Formats: sequence, structure tokens, C-alpha cells
Amino acid sequence: MEFTVSQIAELLNGTVEGDGTTKVSRLDKIQEGTTGGVSFLSNMKYEPHLYTTNSSAVIIAEDYVPDKALSTTLIKVRNPYTAFTQLLEAYSQLNKQHLSGVEEPSFIGENSSMGENGYRGAFSYIGKNCKIGQEVILHPNSYIGDNVQVGDRTIIHSGARICKDSVIGNDCEIHPNTVIGADGFGFAPQDDKTYKGVPQLGNVILEDHVSVGSNTTIDCATIGSTIIRRGVKIDNLVQIAHNVIIGENTVIAAQAGISGSTEIGKNCIIAGQAGLVGHLKIADNTIIGANTGISKSITKPGRTILGYMGFEMKDFLKSYSIFKNLPSLQEKIKELEKKQ
Amino acid sequence: MEFTVSQIAELLNGTVEGDGTTKVSRLDKIQEGTTGGVSFLSNMKYEPHLYTTNSSAVIIAEDYVPDKALSTTLIKVRNPYTAFTQLLEAYSQLNKQHLSGVEEPSFIGENSSMGENGYRGAFSYIGKNCKIGQEVILHPNSYIGDNVQVGDRTIIHSGARICKDSVIGNDCEIHPNTVIGADGFGFAPQDDKTYKGVPQLGNVILEDHVSVGSNTTIDCATIGSTIIRRGVKIDNLVQIAHNVIIGENTVIAAQAGISGSTEIGKNCIIAGQAGLVGHLKIADNTIIGANTGISKSITKPGRTILGYMGFEMKDFLKSYSIFKNLPSLQEKIKELEKKQ
Amino acid sequence: MEFTVSQIAELLNGTVEGDGTTKVSRLDKIQEGTTGGVSFLSNMKYEPHLYTTNSSAVIIAEDYVPDKALSTTLIKVRNPYTAFTQLLEAYSQLNKQHLSGVEEPSFIGENSSMGENGYRGAFSYIGKNCKIGQEVILHPNSYIGDNVQVGDRTIIHSGARICKDSVIGNDCEIHPNTVIGADGFGFAPQDDKTYKGVPQLGNVILEDHVSVGSNTTIDCATIGSTIIRRGVKIDNLVQIAHNVIIGENTVIAAQAGISGSTEIGKNCIIAGQAGLVGHLKIADNTIIGANTGISKSITKPGRTILGYMGFEMKDFLKSYSIFKNLPSLQEKIKELEKKQ
Repeated sequence: MEFTVSQIAELLNGTVEGDGTTKVSRLDKIQEGTTGGVSFLSNMKYEPHLYTTNSSAVIIAEDYVPDKALSTTLIKVRNPYTAFTQLLEAYSQLNKQHLSGVEEPSFIGENSSMGENGYRGAFSYIGKNCKIGQEVILHPNSYIGDNVQVGDRTIIHSGARICKDSVIGNDCEIHPNTVIGADGFGFAPQDDKTYKGVPQLGNVILEDHVSVGSNTTIDCATIGSTIIRRGVKIDNLVQIAHNVIIGENTVIAAQAGISGSTEIGKNCIIAGQAGLVGHLKIADNTIIGANTGISKSITKPGRTILGYMGFEMKDFLKSYSIFKNLPSLQEKIKELEKKQ
Repeated sequence: MEFTVSQIAELLNGTVEGDGTTKVSRLDKIQEGTTGGVSFLSNMKYEPHLYTTNSSAVIIAEDYVPDKALSTTLIKVRNPYTAFTQLLEAYSQLNKQHLSGVEEPSFIGENSSMGENGYRGAFSYIGKNCKIGQEVILHPNSYIGDNVQVGDRTIIHSGARICKDSVIGNDCEIHPNTVIGADGFGFAPQDDKTYKGVPQLGNVILEDHVSVGSNTTIDCATIGSTIIRRGVKIDNLVQIAHNVIIGENTVIAAQAGISGSTEIGKNCIIAGQAGLVGHLKIADNTIIGANTGISKSITKPGRTILGYMGFEMKDFLKSYSIFKNLPSLQEKIKELEKKQ
Repeated sequence: MEFTVSQIAELLNGTVEGDGTTKVSRLDKIQEGTTGGVSFLSNMKYEPHLYTTNSSAVIIAEDYVPDKALSTTLIKVRNPYTAFTQLLEAYSQLNKQHLSGVEEPSFIGENSSMGENGYRGAFSYIGKNCKIGQEVILHPNSYIGDNVQVGDRTIIHSGARICKDSVIGNDCEIHPNTVIGADGFGFAPQDDKTYKGVPQLGNVILEDHVSVGSNTTIDCATIGSTIIRRGVKIDNLVQIAHNVIIGENTVIAAQAGISGSTEIGKNCIIAGQAGLVGHLKIADNTIIGANTGISKSITKPGRTILGYMGFEMKDFLKSYSIFKNLPSLQEKIKELEKKQ
């Protein structure tokens, strides 16, 4: 499908600087721009590409003033990233393929039902006593255990495992090979130094609009529920242990790990490879930096925490910059001692 | 099923403080207690909930003396967590569902056999020349490669991959999407800077009573065997590289990684996100803290190791507390220098 | 199959020290040597085993001179590890099983084709419009989404998920349960503190001779491609985010994570559990140590980087050794202050 730059600008509530009649049909990265493509500039790291890109049009901030002549047409908007996201959304809707029906062989157990207009791919498995909502997409080779509920319009990708008793909300997306509701890691030490498995009898609840990445694990509760609240977004290879609760609209990046019974507040951001020990409470709006270890509860909302065994970001960075100069600091002490 | 608090107390070898005729039918978390539920208090972090819980009964340490009046009935026992675990166990046995038979379609290769009273779920695959024991549970979509042995009563969950030549003991449990016996990461650098794959010809051996979490990887040995000894418990998303040996009753928490040919002793605890480089020997009863990096062998048994490039816990904590004060330390040096 | 030590030595272009007529039929680890086995000694950590091994022959460096009498026969070569790798290769070729044909049930979508001499295992799935090359091995329970291309001789193991639009080169190997081409983690924050998914419309390209371990995730690009160049080797549980580019012959060890849009140069080595933030450029021949965090681009090729928030290895080790002595350093400052 082809549009003029002016049409795009109108859609995005922006203004054109250059030739509005130029035709575009494709979305590009600015550094890989092509004739007929439209790209965007938001992160100023990429500014030099503006002057060399082959994109026919670039979406840019409305207050941006170029240093020199440009060969591309500008579409000026309030927020270039959001505007580009809108375009992606529109493009994605135009190209969306509607999956429906049942591919064989697939398996559905006794007493389970699936709502209308859904899709079950080949080799997908649904256990007993499951209630699957409307317009649900179960990709091939996915698995749903016994007594599971899945809400409307939820998408479960290939190889995802939704284990027994899980409750998945509406409009969720579970990416490939993620495991939801498998046993938590609970073992009671015995007198002979062996461990005995503690039965994990609870479940996992995902509220609405939750997204979980690929190869992530969310364990069922020992009793009660592991709860992922409305709007939470979880990346790939994340570990969420038993009885954890994640507050609304919190975001957790790849390879982070949350230990058992820890409760995370609303609107938090947990960066990649961060780790939290068990039985903590983390206040709302907390930001935890990449690879940060958290071993104490955080009670004051809105803090940014960083560093091995996490402390306040600005304190950590100050100490860390001196850490880098420890050899010269040691040298100074030696000199001071000599002078005594 | 309903029991009186006195019946529960008798089962747990405990004593009742309050109304022993109260009826309970459910297990609760203390902070989410409900009428008719029984919960427990072990970790004193949760003590305040004792006075507000709606649980009809709470299992508690025999020497615990409440500060104020309680609305719940107490069941006093020697070890509340162990006692609660016993209850979970009993509850789990009462509610256990016995899986057996074969769901179709499933696949079993030439010259493979499966013992009595087992279960093969739909879309499960067994390769050639496999010997599967009695009462083995193969959940749907699981995979067993050629020449694999699986012992009695072992449970293999959905999406787990047991690759060729693996030997799995009795009473093991392999959680969803875990991979056992795939190739180790062995590549020989060539003169032209490419790498050539080193064939990985060995296997993985899991002895009896081993539990492996979800989305974990245990690679086969280059030659010989990667060995996980009796009673080892491994959590989710753990990496065990080729030729590693893990000693009896060692516990490894989520997202930890053990590099090639490292040997871990018996009764060790390796916390979450810890990492060990290759070719080390770790003595028995070693405890390695969360996110700790280990780059040297540990020869003395029973140490607790912590911190980036791990050292003795108390030393690390001392240095780390001063690290936090580095800015003031630097200030002091500047002042001392000025006074010269 | 049985060979004499002299035959092995000839194959490896080495010389025999001891009885060349000894017969061997098996490959051993030196510490677990058996009569009739041949092992190797390369890492001098294992030297003591040379004097106690039961292996009938040991491959060793040509300039190695034993301290005392040996009961085993030596095969002296330029590079013992490379020579042993050659033997493994030969052994592996002799024992290789050729998989071919189609096991049923398996699924292949409209308009998809598969080249000659390939294998499709039971419960494997190929979507629509796919072009699969010659001699491709699709193990059981593997999944290939719509519009995917796979080159010749590539091996896709059980449970691997190759999502829509991916392009996989020749001679690649994708290990079990790895996910290639699932959605990147892109969410745009909204005014009401919810997040809205940014459509991920790009794909993943794997060039030729790429190997990817088990349970690894490589996300598709938002637009354009996430690119893994020729000869790259990736271990287990690695996270590669959207729009990342990995240069030729770079090696990435287990549990490392590369955030979105970061570009890694050629011939780099990224050790286990390392983490890189997004939008960086890492120069060719960079070595990044285990558990190292990288938050800035590295422009000079050939550096070795180590430590939390990574800096030059020798600087880090110097600072870190003083970190361990911080308590005594603090003591010295206190004494200096007293003397004022």
C-alpha cells in the first residue's frame, strides 16, 4: 500500500517540511533507510544518519532544526517515537492475518470448552475441565494443563506451557516456550541431609493485559496464588518464584529474577539481570538498575536503586567512581604515612 | 474433606490452644487467612498477621507466647514449617490424580519399551532403543531421544527434552521445557578465526531423587558423563555445562550457572544467579551467595562465599560497608594532605 | 572399532613414545582412563592424572617431558587439544546416524517445501510459505512459523521455535527449546501509566554456520532485522534483544544478555552472565569477562573488559585487590588522623 508523506503527516497530526507529495510504502530504520521508506529520529545518538539516510521521509520532533540541507522530507510531530509507534500499529493492523479454526491433530480433554472465533494449532494440547475464552489463539505445540482458565483474545505461542489450575486473563500474550504454573522450588531439609519436596498446591493468576516473553518461568504458589497484576510486562528468561506478587503496570526486563514471596509494587521498572531475594516488599514506582541485587525491602516509593546489593543510584555511582581510583588513593595513604 | 483442629493437632503431634472442635478444610497463607482455613507462622516477619488473620487455626512454634488476645486457635508444634509441610503432603496425597494409559497420537520408536502403570500424553515422543521404567509419567509434548533410560516413578513434564543417551534415575522430576543432554558448548578456534564444533559424544546421568526446574539446561559431556548425583535439587533457568559433576543433596537456585568440568561437592547450596567458571573443585557443604562469582576452587569444606569474584562472606561485607563510605574516606585523605 | 596407537599417531601427525602396537577402541577423560582407551592432557591442572591414569594411551604436547616413569603410551603432537578434537570428529563420523524421511503425524502448511534428503520428526510443524533447504533435520516437536527460510544441512532440535519471517542460513544448528524471532520487548508508556505494545514487524537473520544453544532467545527486530553473522556461536540461556547485530565469529557464553540495538563486532568473546545495555557499539576482538556489565560503547578493538559496569581488566583487578583490603586502608587513615 502506498501513501503520500502528507497523508502520513495528517494521520500523525504533524506537519510536513519538504515535498508532501513524495510516496512511501514501507517503514525503515534511519541508518538503513531506502527510497520509498519512512523512518524516525528520536534518540539523538542516531542524528548523524539524518543527513545520510536514503529514507524518503523522516519523522522528527517539531522543535528540531537541521544544521544543514537535507535530501529527505521531514514530518514534524510532538513525540517522534510515539508517532512512529502509531504508524507501526497501523501497518500491523493492515497486514494482520486472522487465524481461526482447528488444525489436526490437536487434543482437547473432557469437559473443556473453547469460545468462538479462536484457533488451535496442530499438536496443541488442552487438558480436562478448561475454560478457554473467545478469539483465543493457541499456537502449534502449546500446552494447557487441567483446570486452566484463559480469558478472551489471549494469545499463547508455540511451546508455551500453562500448567494446571492457572488463571490467565483477557488480552494476555504468552510467548514461545514460557512456563507458567510449574512447581515452585520448595524443599524441606531432612535430618539425613536429603531434601523432601514440599507439595506446591497453589496456582498462578495473570490478570488482564499481561505480556510474558519467551523462555520465562512463573512458578505456582505453595498455597494461594502467584499473582501478576493487570498490565505487567515481562521480558525473556525471567524467573518469578512461588508466591510472588507483581503490581500493576510494572515492567521486568530480561534475565531478572524475583525470589519467593517477594511483592513488587505498581509502576516499577526492574532492569535486566537484576535479582531480588525472597520475602521483600518493594514500594511503588521503584526503579532497580541492571544486574542490581536487592536484599532488603524498599519502603519509600520512587527510588532508583543500583549496584551489587543495591543502594541509591547516586551514592553507588559516587562510590564506584572512587573504587576505580583506589590504586591512587592507596598511593596517597602510603605517601602520607612516609611523611609522618 | 473436613477435620477438627484437634484431629490436625494429633496428626502433627502438637497441642491445641483454643477451641479444638473448630472445623477446617483448607490450607491458607496467614496473610490471606479465611474461615475454615489453617495457616502457619514460621518466619517472624509475618508475626503481625497472627493478630489479624481470619484463619480458623494457625500452626505455631511450641514456645511461642502471644502478646495479646487471639481470635484464632493455635496448634503448637516443634517445627511449624515442617508440620505445615506434612499437612501439605497429606492434602496433596488426598487430592492426587493418578495418570495412566496412552493418549493418541503419541510416538514410540523401534526397540523401546515402557514399564507398567505409566502414562504417555498426546504428542509425547520416545526415540529408539529406550528403556522407560514403571509408573513413569510422560506429559504431553515431551521428548525422549534415542538410547535413553528412565527409572521408575520418574515424572517428565510437558516440553521437557531428554536428549540421546541420557540416563535418568528413579523418582526424578523434570519440569517443563527443561533440556537435558543437548550438546555442550565446545568449539575449537581455527587459524582463520572461525570455530569448529567439537563433537560432544558423552551423556548426562541423573541419579535417583533428582529434581530439575523449568527451562533449565544440563549439557552432555564431551566424553564421559555430566553427572547429577542422588538427591540434587535444581531450580529454574539454571545452566549446567558439559562434564560438570554435582555432589549428593546439593541445591542450586534459579539462574545460577556452572561452567564446564567444574565439580561441586555434597550438601552445597548455590544461591540464585551465582556463577562458577570451569575446571573448579568446590568442597562439600559450601554455601555460595546470590549473584556471587567464583573463579577459584574452594578446598576447605563448609565456607560461605559472597560477592563479585567471591570471597569469605564476613570479609566481603566488611569491605563492602567501607565501599559505601568511600566518598568520605577520600575526603579524609584530602584533608590529611592539606594539613601536610 | 579397534586401532593401534601407531595408527592413531599417524592420523594425528604425531609420534609414539612407548608401545605403538597397543590397541585402543575408545575415548576417555584422563582422570577416568580405562584400558583400551585414549585420553589427552592439555590443561596442566590435570597433569597429576598422567601418572595414575589407566588409559592405554595419552595424547600430549610434543615438548612435554615426564618427571617419572609412565605406565601409559604417549602420542606426542603439536597441539593435544586440537588433535583430540580431530579424534572426536573421526569417532563421531564413524558413529553418525543418518536421519531421513518423515515421521507421522507431522504438519506442513500450504505453499511450503522441503529439499531432498531431509528429516521431519513426529509432531514437527512447518507453517505456510516456508522454504526449507536440502538435508535439513527437523527433530520431533520443533516448530517453524510462516514465511521462514532455512538453508541446507541445518539442524533444528526438538522444541526449537523458529518464528515467522526468520531467515536461517546453511549449516546452522539450533538446540532444543531455543526461540528465534519472537517479539522484541517493546512497550510505549501511556499517560495513564499503562504500556502499549509496539508492533514488532521485523525478523531475525542467522547467516551460515551459526550455532545457538538450548533455551536461548533471539528476538525479532522492531523493523529491519536482528542479525547474527556467519560463524557466531551462542551458548544456552542467552538473551539477544531486538535489532541486535552480532559480528562474524563472535562467541557468547551461557546466560549472557545483549540489550536492544547493540552491535557487537567480529571475533569478540562474551563470557557467561555478562550483560550489555542497549544502543552500544562494541569493537572487534573485544573480550568481556564473566558477569561483567557494559554500559558504554567500546571503540578501541582488542580490549579485555571486566567488572561490574566493566572497565579494563588490569585496572579492575588492581582496584578489586585493594577493595579486599579496604578495612586495613580505613584503619591506616584513622591512625594518620590521630597523629595530627
